[in-house]
Amino acid sequence: MAFTKGAGPHQRGLTIGVDIGGTKVAAGVVTPAGRVLARVRTETPHKSKSPKVVEDTIAGVVEELRRDYTVGAVGVGAAGFVDDQRATVLFAPHLAWRNEPLRDALKARLDLPVVVENDANAAAWAEMCAGAGRNADDVIVVNLGTGIGGAVVIGGVLRRGRHGLGGEFGHMTIVPDGHRCECGNRGCWEQYASGNALTREARELTQAESPVARGLAQAVGGDPALITGPLVTELAQKGDRACAELLEDAGTWLGIGLANLAAAFDPELFIIGGGVSEAGDLLLEPARKAFRRTLTGRGYRPEAEIVAAALGNEAGLIGAADLARDALPRWRQGRRQRRLSRSRESRRAF
Amino acid sequence: MAFTKGAGPHQRGLTIGVDIGGTKVAAGVVTPAGRVLARVRTETPHKSKSPKVVEDTIAGVVEELRRDYTVGAVGVGAAGFVDDQRATVLFAPHLAWRNEPLRDALKARLDLPVVVENDANAAAWAEMCAGAGRNADDVIVVNLGTGIGGAVVIGGVLRRGRHGLGGEFGHMTIVPDGHRCECGNRGCWEQYASGNALTREARELTQAESPVARGLAQAVGGDPALITGPLVTELAQKGDRACAELLEDAGTWLGIGLANLAAAFDPELFIIGGGVSEAGDLLLEPARKAFRRTLTGRGYRPEAEIVAAALGNEAGLIGAADLARDALPRWRQGRRQRRLSRSRESRRAF
Repeated sequence: MAFTKGAGPHQRGLTIGVDIGGTKVAAGVVTPAGRVLARVRTETPHKSKSPKVVEDTIAGVVEELRRDYTVGAVGVGAAGFVDDQRATVLFAPHLAWRNEPLRDALKARLDLPVVVENDANAAAWAEMCAGAGRNADDVIVVNLGTGIGGAVVIGGVLRRGRHGLGGEFGHMTIVPDGHRCECGNRGCWEQYASGNALTREARELTQAESPVARGLAQAVGGDPALITGPLVTELAQKGDRACAELLEDAGTWLGIGLANLAAAFDPELFIIGGGVSEAGDLLLEPARKAFRRTLTGRGYRPEAEIVAAALGNEAGLIGAADLARDALPRWRQGRRQRRLSRSRESRRAF
Repeated sequence: MAFTKGAGPHQRGLTIGVDIGGTKVAAGVVTPAGRVLARVRTETPHKSKSPKVVEDTIAGVVEELRRDYTVGAVGVGAAGFVDDQRATVLFAPHLAWRNEPLRDALKARLDLPVVVENDANAAAWAEMCAGAGRNADDVIVVNLGTGIGGAVVIGGVLRRGRHGLGGEFGHMTIVPDGHRCECGNRGCWEQYASGNALTREARELTQAESPVARGLAQAVGGDPALITGPLVTELAQKGDRACAELLEDAGTWLGIGLANLAAAFDPELFIIGGGVSEAGDLLLEPARKAFRRTLTGRGYRPEAEIVAAALGNEAGLIGAADLARDALPRWRQGRRQRRLSRSRESRRAF
């Protein structure tokens, strides 16, 4: 993701991607090949602030990047429901947005074409163009953050759903009458395999003063509230058995959910991204095992691979930047990765 | 589905569809507009018989129909995993097929182009062309038979999955450690919302000699083994409260599963087919209620409609016949329903 030879500030097809998370806004200038030439980061305005304040923040990072680069369009990835026109944020749990016409507001301020996309879709698209999905066309990307988001790619094309709201895998019920979810239901998948689930389980184990949680308790000076997902991963990597088991539990739930998605979509590849995926095989091996055990028709069918995402936390901005190229005239899009042309080839076979 | 004016035995674009179920083989001559001009039915050979016997049966019904009609191709819908080339049955639970190269075997015998398709995909395709999905492009069809099968249509195109094995919704885990399923897992959706599930629950209730099951017990002369799904539906329609509650339970599980599929795919429409769907609103109203209650983001998103299939048990053969037209040269396909052209229009928006 470093500066590329020959990629100058006036290169054809540069766009800006902006990734608006619950806590951080990350933005960057991105080449058509998915390389990030410059970056800006800032805080996400608190959810109590008006939509206007978030717009100001986005406009601010874009203007900062435009000082040094000539760009053709802006892509914004936001954690929330984005409509099928990729224009309006219907609902964003971490922001004050309700039916917010973000695209048009930003377009008017920036005088640039703008595309708004769900953040998980944007990150997934980056993996397809320049990451772990480069050589695949039928892929499900599952993002394990505080919750679980994701995206569906079929025939090399991002499939957003009729109203733009597909890929909300985290809210598939997997345990009827299970843990309460912030969406209002019980037993959603993200209550079992997300970062929040991992933290909740680690805290409960520590609160129960189980002897197996001694390492965890020591690491946080006896205060379970200080336990975080990255801490669990770190301790597990250092050999703490309870933490490894917590990741194993999350991985097992992950694998069961992936088997459900395989029954419905039959992809060739699952890409697992998001913070929790940094646990690597401590999470993915139990997931693969549960997947193989739960997949319907096992033994009579080819099985999808389960791999970690490749682009880390820049995927969101890279993908948003690439999707923004859709708003450019064809001749200004630059030499994009082969995603669009391959998708045409593969459509028939699918 | 009656004989159509102007549709003669030499009409352009006639094809034969063959639907191979667990007990019956149904075949028919079908016009490009989805009308069935002639029909044949026979028994499915027992699963102990060799694949050759099933081939004989298929060839027999095709030859019988060809005596009176000139057809261009044959489509076969089979309950099983069909590969992505629509040629080989990888596995069929009710037949002796394991990696059976059915397409080429039939092609050689019949001297006609042959397409093999999963039966639920075929039935779904018929609903898209000539049934409840006529005016929609992004649809999930769920077939409630002894198990639960289904199909995914996105942008007017049947999405079969990378290996041709998508749409096996019945084997999504919905109750961890729930009822055993014939696929080897526990808690599969079809153990809660299929015809088999309905029958099992009705038998258990009757076996328990619950006073609420008096109507059921009387109807089968005290022998729970005689209870069938259609009987439960019939009694419920006549006002038997226990039977209505059994359908309500199945419908509730149906709605929860549909909400899961909506979270992942975000379709505009669910079409519910198969024998159990003949219970109509006794099943679908509880399903709609559970769906609305379980759908993530409810209140902030458009909701998919849930409707009954329109074509009844001829959907499988109609869909197989239409899919067989893909094997014909374009000029011989006849005037097909508008499905193909609309899908091109709608692909952009999706």
